[in-house]
Amino acid sequence: MDHKRDEENGLDGNYNSEVETEHMKKMEKENQEEKEEEEEEEEMSVERIFEGKEVPSWREQLTVRAFVVSFVLSVLFTFIVMKLNLTTGIIPSLNVSAGLLGFFFVSVWTKFLDKSGLLKQPFTRQENTVIQTCVVASSGIAFSGGFGSYLFGMSQAIAKQSENAGGNEEYKNPAVAWMIGFLFVVSFLGLFSVVPLRKIMIVDFKLTYPSGTATAHLINSFHTPQGAKLAKKQVRVLGKYFSFSFLWGFFQWFFAAGDNCGFAGFPTFGLKAYKYKFFFDFSATYVGVGMICPHIVNISLLVGGILSWGVMWPLIETRKGDWYPADLPSSNIRGLQGYKIFIAIATILGDGLYNFFKVLGQTLLGLFYQLQYKNMSGVPPIEDRSSPRSSSTSYNDTRRTQVFLKDQIPTSFAIGGYIAIAAISMATLPHIFPQLKWYYILVIYLVAPTMAFCNAYGCGLTDWSLASTYGKLAIFSIGAWAGAAHGGVIAGLAACGVMMNIVSTASDLMQDFKTGYLTLASPRSMFVSQFIGTAMGCVISPCVFWLFYKAFDDLGQSGSEYPAPYALVYHNMAVLGVEGISNLPKNCFTLCCVFFGAAILVNLVRDAVGRKRAQFIPIPMAMAIPFYLGPYFAIDMCVGSLILFIWQRINKAKAEAFGPAVASGLICGEGIWTLPGSILALAGIKQPICMKFLSRATNARVDKFLGA
Amino acid sequence: MDHKRDEENGLDGNYNSEVETEHMKKMEKENQEEKEEEEEEEEMSVERIFEGKEVPSWREQLTVRAFVVSFVLSVLFTFIVMKLNLTTGIIPSLNVSAGLLGFFFVSVWTKFLDKSGLLKQPFTRQENTVIQTCVVASSGIAFSGGFGSYLFGMSQAIAKQSENAGGNEEYKNPAVAWMIGFLFVVSFLGLFSVVPLRKIMIVDFKLTYPSGTATAHLINSFHTPQGAKLAKKQVRVLGKYFSFSFLWGFFQWFFAAGDNCGFAGFPTFGLKAYKYKFFFDFSATYVGVGMICPHIVNISLLVGGILSWGVMWPLIETRKGDWYPADLPSSNIRGLQGYKIFIAIATILGDGLYNFFKVLGQTLLGLFYQLQYKNMSGVPPIEDRSSPRSSSTSYNDTRRTQVFLKDQIPTSFAIGGYIAIAAISMATLPHIFPQLKWYYILVIYLVAPTMAFCNAYGCGLTDWSLASTYGKLAIFSIGAWAGAAHGGVIAGLAACGVMMNIVSTASDLMQDFKTGYLTLASPRSMFVSQFIGTAMGCVISPCVFWLFYKAFDDLGQSGSEYPAPYALVYHNMAVLGVEGISNLPKNCFTLCCVFFGAAILVNLVRDAVGRKRAQFIPIPMAMAIPFYLGPYFAIDMCVGSLILFIWQRINKAKAEAFGPAVASGLICGEGIWTLPGSILALAGIKQPICMKFLSRATNARVDKFLGA
Repeated sequence: MDHKRDEENGLDGNYNSEVETEHMKKMEKENQEEKEEEEEEEEMSVERIFEGKEVPSWREQLTVRAFVVSFVLSVLFTFIVMKLNLTTGIIPSLNVSAGLLGFFFVSVWTKFLDKSGLLKQPFTRQENTVIQTCVVASSGIAFSGGFGSYLFGMSQAIAKQSENAGGNEEYKNPAVAWMIGFLFVVSFLGLFSVVPLRKIMIVDFKLTYPSGTATAHLINSFHTPQGAKLAKKQVRVLGKYFSFSFLWGFFQWFFAAGDNCGFAGFPTFGLKAYKYKFFFDFSATYVGVGMICPHIVNISLLVGGILSWGVMWPLIETRKGDWYPADLPSSNIRGLQGYKIFIAIATILGDGLYNFFKVLGQTLLGLFYQLQYKNMSGVPPIEDRSSPRSSSTSYNDTRRTQVFLKDQIPTSFAIGGYIAIAAISMATLPHIFPQLKWYYILVIYLVAPTMAFCNAYGCGLTDWSLASTYGKLAIFSIGAWAGAAHGGVIAGLAACGVMMNIVSTASDLMQDFKTGYLTLASPRSMFVSQFIGTAMGCVISPCVFWLFYKAFDDLGQSGSEYPAPYALVYHNMAVLGVEGISNLPKNCFTLCCVFFGAAILVNLVRDAVGRKRAQFIPIPMAMAIPFYLGPYFAIDMCVGSLILFIWQRINKAKAEAFGPAVASGLICGEGIWTLPGSILALAGIKQPICMKFLSRATNARVDKFLGA
Repeated sequence: MDHKRDEENGLDGNYNSEVETEHMKKMEKENQEEKEEEEEEEEMSVERIFEGKEVPSWREQLTVRAFVVSFVLSVLFTFIVMKLNLTTGIIPSLNVSAGLLGFFFVSVWTKFLDKSGLLKQPFTRQENTVIQTCVVASSGIAFSGGFGSYLFGMSQAIAKQSENAGGNEEYKNPAVAWMIGFLFVVSFLGLFSVVPLRKIMIVDFKLTYPSGTATAHLINSFHTPQGAKLAKKQVRVLGKYFSFSFLWGFFQWFFAAGDNCGFAGFPTFGLKAYKYKFFFDFSATYVGVGMICPHIVNISLLVGGILSWGVMWPLIETRKGDWYPADLPSSNIRGLQGYKIFIAIATILGDGLYNFFKVLGQTLLGLFYQLQYKNMSGVPPIEDRSSPRSSSTSYNDTRRTQVFLKDQIPTSFAIGGYIAIAAISMATLPHIFPQLKWYYILVIYLVAPTMAFCNAYGCGLTDWSLASTYGKLAIFSIGAWAGAAHGGVIAGLAACGVMMNIVSTASDLMQDFKTGYLTLASPRSMFVSQFIGTAMGCVISPCVFWLFYKAFDDLGQSGSEYPAPYALVYHNMAVLGVEGISNLPKNCFTLCCVFFGAAILVNLVRDAVGRKRAQFIPIPMAMAIPFYLGPYFAIDMCVGSLILFIWQRINKAKAEAFGPAVASGLICGEGIWTLPGSILALAGIKQPICMKFLSRATNARVDKFLGA
């Protein structure tokens, strides 16, 4: 009977795993399909090559030298990020630099020890990943800590410059003590919220996480045992494109003196198209990202870009003076900018929530079955059931999934940690910001995991973290709730901080989990490394910021060396936010509802038409990202996609063997260039030339001006 | 005894041919050596592929349809060249376009006839070459006719704008009648002067003539019989790079609104280096030319560029105010410009004269031996002796040389023609320009063949025709001789015309002979085609110019749509020239003498050290070209050289099979782009964007200006 039940169970189990397979397959069909084609075959031999190398236990992966190196690199990267925060506010992904420099430092160190006979433990790729993860977690705080945005936006210096500065503005000046305290109580939440999601994101959805994948390729290639011919070739290809990309970044640097100068502002398709952000900006990074992302993601980005910047924004612009005041500056959130931000948010939320609830439903369903039959033997737990999910799974995947699922972090531990920190947070945060009531915080903590999921999911698809978008959402919702009379500005900005820390950490750390997955690093060692890194960041970042704050008197003043442009932007958003959603431009809320609904509808259609046809239907999440940023990076990524597509047509085997190496090289090269680039900026060495693009008429005027 | 003598003769013959081999080998050793390696192996199969195809007799190569197509294309190209003449004055080589369009027209025509069953004679590559040659000869007149320089520089409109316009300036306004007459009496001289040199240049020296070689590759690839696999692959490679180069030219166009705009003014090595013309201008044409030219030529160009623009001109500039007046505009020939032009001329003359006299000496020596033993049988004539010159000669070379030398044009015919036309010229020219005395013309005609040799030789090495440089020399020498009082200005300009026509035609037609050599076209049919083409040009060009002259009232006015910048430049040079060599800037004459001597010395050293070592010694002729123009195109060419060098290192066989195809594709693509580019210009469609390069400081000023 037991046996019979088992069979029934087997059936149920089959059904169940079919559901899971269904959701896995439907959720990111094209993603999965393409990755299966691209990655599994391409890396056919990677884990075979490493087969002889023992994977150290998770405790062995966490070495003292790794954390020493991590600390040094964290300080370095925090300086760089802080500088970028306070100058332009645009922060590139530093994952790759962290991986490479980590390898460099430790390998020099171990070689030195090896020669002196003192080396006890060889340098493994898992250790390398631990360093990378720790550095990313630590330097990520420099961004999500909001030193260039919400946190500095609370200061008196910024409040003074605000639009409606009536002299009676609320403000909270930076101080090391409260900043460290604040970061400690909010930064770990993202960590705990992301841990239970790791299997769904990495193993089930097989999301790409381009930066994380690139970093993993890099780390794997460094540690490839001697004699592996293909790997050696891949390393050579990676090196070649790495050098090219690095030199290209270096070359571009010289021509980028001033705004809109250089290749990043190249009006490839003409000045009119450039105005609507349609241009190819010659970014090797995003061409590489496009080569790693599935074709449908790149196409979705482009379709979204065309829909928004090619159709909607120009149409809305014709309503200028009717839908919104004509005399607003283009960056004002009450104008066109409002449509861009809120429609993007609505679409992302629609897609994110649909997938969140779908997964939640299926997880609960699975849980329900498991609970119903939990006393019977032979029914594998949910986690295990999916791992040997099909016979077609490649050796790489089997091995990686096995290692990834070996060292479990109990979900109860994650949930318990989240609740405990949330409770501490609710108790302490109102002491730091009296305007931020405990119930605001409670609401944020209730919705935050959803947002974290959305962001980690979107980032996995496109490599683009939208943490600041979610942060803006918090500014508006909490600000409006609190109201101007009750310190809504500070409450909004503080809420933004809480939200941004959670969602930003979620996407960063999921990238690291992906890297860990591909390098056979234990999730436990990753978690510990992230924990230690986050703690480091909570101390290093405020100290570094304090140094800047004290060293430069005119920090945050527009026109100075460190204008911190986003600090003022965030402050102004908060000022506007307290006036509520009724202050959105005309029809904006209606449009948001339409796009929210459309995102859900498209997802329903994608799930309904089946796997084959779904790969021709764009993904709303990906479409929404260029709504706000413009389609230029989508064009870069489509170029990458096109290159890979043509390459696959010409020589499929070669494209699959070397495509990821080329892509990683392109991403890493320009990534590493940001390091010397930032050092040059810190040293005050400025770009000498501006490559400017002027219309024929303007050029004639300029020539006359320069001639006179 | 006869037999014995024969043996002796054989010895002498051997000695003799050794001398010839010596001079052949020494003259352009590296050139020859590299070409032997590059071309013979690379094209190993070209003539084998064509083996089955009969070469039509030279009369059959000259079809009526060929000349009809040539006429149509000539009109088209003359319009283009005239437009360029009158706008910027920079005329690219149109050989390739002519070859391609000729093929296109005739093949469409023959396909049409073939279908209607009326085709009598198939379209051969020889016929294609005939069209190309005729069009080049015809449209060449549009340049060498001086409608944008010396000829239009005589007009009243230009004289009025001249520096020292005292109202009493001499002038000669354009009129169709005298222009046609003038061209007819001077244009055929180049043709006759170049004919006797063709064997020396093409067969003995094996000069490259990059444009001519590229055109020949193109024509050969079009007519390759079906089934030739390598050729098909080469055509595909050529097509790919052709498309790339064409699209690149198209893309560049958009960003070139205004002076110093676009990629052609890209300060690749910084603004300071750009000021001294050190930059990579992204010209696919010159990268391709660099891939065809031997490495030593490219290196020589670069060395010359560094010596002049990197060392000498900056040094001379420090003497500003001492050696030459400080307040002169940079284009004034009494200032730095004078050093550039005259030192370049001196070096070119030194190298050219050395080689001329060396060849002359060796030819006379050979002639002497031939005359001494002319009654004995078994002694091959000079022409024949060199053809089967070594057993290592490839099939391609043997076959080509055989065809090239089959249809002889008697040297006596060429000399007779030259003398006859010179006589007519001397009789008629003083009627057109009373200031140009018959004895000036006689002197020009005595030295012109030397100059023609020099130019054809230099062009063969580097693809750069220096016709206008020789023209300037005539302006100064004849102008100074005539003197201001006796109409030296008009005399100088007219002398420039006579000289330019000869030397320009010499290099153009030698390019065509090279094309003919590589496509097995008969020298006789080439000669006839050139003759007819020249006659066409003598009528078409003045008529087209007359159209422009009548259509635009402000032709030649600076600031107008057709400023004809070089017309004024030439006029001013003539005005300065009449004051004689004493008016050269300080030490300029001394420097000229030094460089003249150095050029001879370097050639002596090159001949003395032997073949192996000579390939590391730069060629003075090549070094001199960037003296005047700047090293930017040398950088392009070195990039081409470097690409080929690396390619040869990676895969020698592939590089040799496809290198010339890539190079030809690069040259042809941008070459063809000039056609739609010029049509756009004629249609008044202007480039929309200026890609400008400003220093950081200037950019800040401009931003302020544009913001205000």
